[in-house]
Amino acid sequence: MVEFYDTTLRDGSQAEGVAFSVEDKLIIIEALDKLGIRYIEGGYPGSNPKDIEFFKRAKGIALETATIVPFGSTRYPTYTVDADPNLTALLDTGARTVTIFGKSWRLHATDVLRVTAEENLELIESSVRYLVENGREVIYDAEHFFDGYADDAEYAIETLRAAATGGASCLVLCDTNGGRLPLEIQEGVKVVLSELSLPVGIHTHNDAGMGAANSVLAVQAGATHIQGTFNGYGERCGNANLASIIPTIQLKLGIKCLSDTQLQALTRVSRLISELANLPHDERQPYVGSSAFAHKGGLHTDAIRKNRLTYEHIVPETVGNTQRILVSDQAGRGTIMKKIEKEYPDYDKNSPQVLELFKRLKEAEQEGYQYEAAEASFELLTHKVFNGYESFFEPVGFRVIIEQFSDYAMRSEATVKVTTPDGLTAHTAADGDGPVNALDTALRKALEQFYPALQTVRLIDYKVRVLDTKAGTGSKVRVLIEASDGERTWSTVGVSENIISASAKH
Amino acid sequence: MVEFYDTTLRDGSQAEGVAFSVEDKLIIIEALDKLGIRYIEGGYPGSNPKDIEFFKRAKGIALETATIVPFGSTRYPTYTVDADPNLTALLDTGARTVTIFGKSWRLHATDVLRVTAEENLELIESSVRYLVENGREVIYDAEHFFDGYADDAEYAIETLRAAATGGASCLVLCDTNGGRLPLEIQEGVKVVLSELSLPVGIHTHNDAGMGAANSVLAVQAGATHIQGTFNGYGERCGNANLASIIPTIQLKLGIKCLSDTQLQALTRVSRLISELANLPHDERQPYVGSSAFAHKGGLHTDAIRKNRLTYEHIVPETVGNTQRILVSDQAGRGTIMKKIEKEYPDYDKNSPQVLELFKRLKEAEQEGYQYEAAEASFELLTHKVFNGYESFFEPVGFRVIIEQFSDYAMRSEATVKVTTPDGLTAHTAADGDGPVNALDTALRKALEQFYPALQTVRLIDYKVRVLDTKAGTGSKVRVLIEASDGERTWSTVGVSENIISASAKH
Repeated sequence: MVEFYDTTLRDGSQAEGVAFSVEDKLIIIEALDKLGIRYIEGGYPGSNPKDIEFFKRAKGIALETATIVPFGSTRYPTYTVDADPNLTALLDTGARTVTIFGKSWRLHATDVLRVTAEENLELIESSVRYLVENGREVIYDAEHFFDGYADDAEYAIETLRAAATGGASCLVLCDTNGGRLPLEIQEGVKVVLSELSLPVGIHTHNDAGMGAANSVLAVQAGATHIQGTFNGYGERCGNANLASIIPTIQLKLGIKCLSDTQLQALTRVSRLISELANLPHDERQPYVGSSAFAHKGGLHTDAIRKNRLTYEHIVPETVGNTQRILVSDQAGRGTIMKKIEKEYPDYDKNSPQVLELFKRLKEAEQEGYQYEAAEASFELLTHKVFNGYESFFEPVGFRVIIEQFSDYAMRSEATVKVTTPDGLTAHTAADGDGPVNALDTALRKALEQFYPALQTVRLIDYKVRVLDTKAGTGSKVRVLIEASDGERTWSTVGVSENIISASAKH
Repeated sequence: MVEFYDTTLRDGSQAEGVAFSVEDKLIIIEALDKLGIRYIEGGYPGSNPKDIEFFKRAKGIALETATIVPFGSTRYPTYTVDADPNLTALLDTGARTVTIFGKSWRLHATDVLRVTAEENLELIESSVRYLVENGREVIYDAEHFFDGYADDAEYAIETLRAAATGGASCLVLCDTNGGRLPLEIQEGVKVVLSELSLPVGIHTHNDAGMGAANSVLAVQAGATHIQGTFNGYGERCGNANLASIIPTIQLKLGIKCLSDTQLQALTRVSRLISELANLPHDERQPYVGSSAFAHKGGLHTDAIRKNRLTYEHIVPETVGNTQRILVSDQAGRGTIMKKIEKEYPDYDKNSPQVLELFKRLKEAEQEGYQYEAAEASFELLTHKVFNGYESFFEPVGFRVIIEQFSDYAMRSEATVKVTTPDGLTAHTAADGDGPVNALDTALRKALEQFYPALQTVRLIDYKVRVLDTKAGTGSKVRVLIEASDGERTWSTVGVSENIISASAKH
């Protein structure tokens, strides 16, 4: 059995661009608990008042599996344990389990803490003992264990012994700088298991791209506690990614930790955390990215039509993901057939409509369109080619005015004129919070008269990408828009020199 | 000695969102050659007319180290070797070295090629032999070797023996589906080296997050040829990332493959390839991302002030990268001091200006500003706090009109009115390709009258991020702008409900 320890909320929030509000954190702990995570490190109360607030509010939440854990350090050299503000902050959270880190590398003892190697051992032992005497379960994070081991193996082991003597319940070996290689991790874990009789944990970083591999090799060497973050968020290149490690351990090492239903929630939880971190989801992520089971090469898409095992290492649905077939300039007509075969089963590779669709795709890609991320635009194009162009409305024109002068507030106003195939005309105007909003509102006013179903449609995400950076503000832009009617979500793409026009092309 | 084989231009372009033009490819091969890459896989001439064009044009380029290699498959079962269009396309490129892949996994022989296991061995041997007889060096890619080995080890080895008998010069073991673990790779490489007397190569994918680790373990087991892509581009989750593997092998395994100067170009080449792939550079990438040596946690920034080894696994300059200190809501005043100490050496943590700057940063972050990626905005804010507000101009107002009606073309027009501290006024108007360009042009017209130095400044990149997706098109946006005067590049940030106003805030 292996237990997972998530530190997205603490180590993860040390990633560039990541900051969680207390509300975000409360949503995340509920999701991680349901997923079957054993420990959730919620924050560092000794360093951050926002985290103290979090631990207060987290107490009100009933969890099924998870224990919320505060993180801190061994006591400061200048304080006794009972006067140490950091240890006091840990106890004040009221948490039953606490994690503290100490120094395993002489360099850190002498150069950062500025104590002797002997004093450092005492800091570790006394801090752990004080927390244990106060009724806490103590997880001990041996910071820089592997660097320390490489520098002075005997001393690194001594620091663990100090924690064990103090009463720690688990010794977590950390590759804090993320530069150690899998076989070094394997050796370190084996040696510690042979020298000490406590359960061993692993905490790795991704600075050499080995975060997940190092965690998996540690488990193969006998570690039973794994620390990591979702989406690999963390200082510098990030921590080991639990969204990669959990399915690898469960599906490939055959160590069952989560129920099948919990594992199927993996992709959803990973996306939720990206959303709350306010970062684009890394779509190339193993298991949980939208590219993880997306096939583009012509040979690959051909082969998976015959047998999906040929180019998929696991069944995507096991982790709540799905297979996708991409349309690109590498796509042959076979790929296009695979995408349209459900809706247009009576056509083959040589039908004039398929040839026409193929030609139009190539032309649009030349112009800067990319359909890989814009399924709805691909569907619209296919619909036009196969069923002829059915226009629901004809745009006559639009005008957007954005102005701000010192004597009045910023204002965005749009007017829109459209006609329907029946000869009806709508001419509307609207204000908005910005030009895209004003245009959207005016266009809705016009179209909702004829098509009330549009009322449920709203914008989910809006992405702008400059295509030709050499042309400065005169560059072409590609605008990708994600919209939803509350049930389905779809993406469309537009390209223009004008950001407003590129948006309107959707 | 280990040789690197780059397949960014072939396997890399199977990544979602990646497409290289022939011009892009020619730029990339020159950069990879200078970097010291031994082989560059340029394309798949049998599947793609664009790639045939590339090989024609690549002949005109003089390279120092690299050999350009075309990629293809063993012959199709329905053709003899000399009539096979794929083998013919390989020979037609005129390349001295060619790579072909064949099937090592029974499942692929029977379910994809639809031949017997015996026939598959013959396809491999005859195809390799035909190319060798035509004077080519043949690198043999054993597709799905590790999956095949797990399924039927003896047969997988037989397929390699067929390639060796045909005359292949290197046997590359591929984890095509990317789902194998490091210890499996290690075992596979050792067995093949003991069974066959040819050099062994490795080609891995990242579907379980093990791409780089699997390559490194293969080298530790005796492989001497490593295939990968820059930035890890490739089908699904991507190929093993050469930008991670090269420095790991050179700096951590101590196998010198590149000169020190070549290694220092690593970050630049990696960024160039992102640029040409037209994708945002993955800043969390090991070694070559801008976050790779960026420190955010208060304790970390404090420690690296004392000794940079404490939280950096290598010296960033070795790979052409640099250390960065981030400003964030986790940053204590120590972090801020580290950022400003050069320009304002006479202040300390408790100076009123430092306290004021700290307060303003926290307030701006609450509003949605993020300074981590906008150094120039941070500098401006610091300048305001320390030196008082020196306004170079006062905006009186602006108006932007974007319109398109069926009787005339799209038009964007902006007017701008500004005053200078000396009481001068400029009131200008300009058309533009889109509203941001119109506004930019009008504002330049006004300001260049007073500040001619602005003429050299141009926009490099423009990124828009919706901050609150729940508010639809009325959402707040954060606009990040990168600008350059040809020598230095800087980034600024603005937040508003109005995309035009958020841009103008820069």
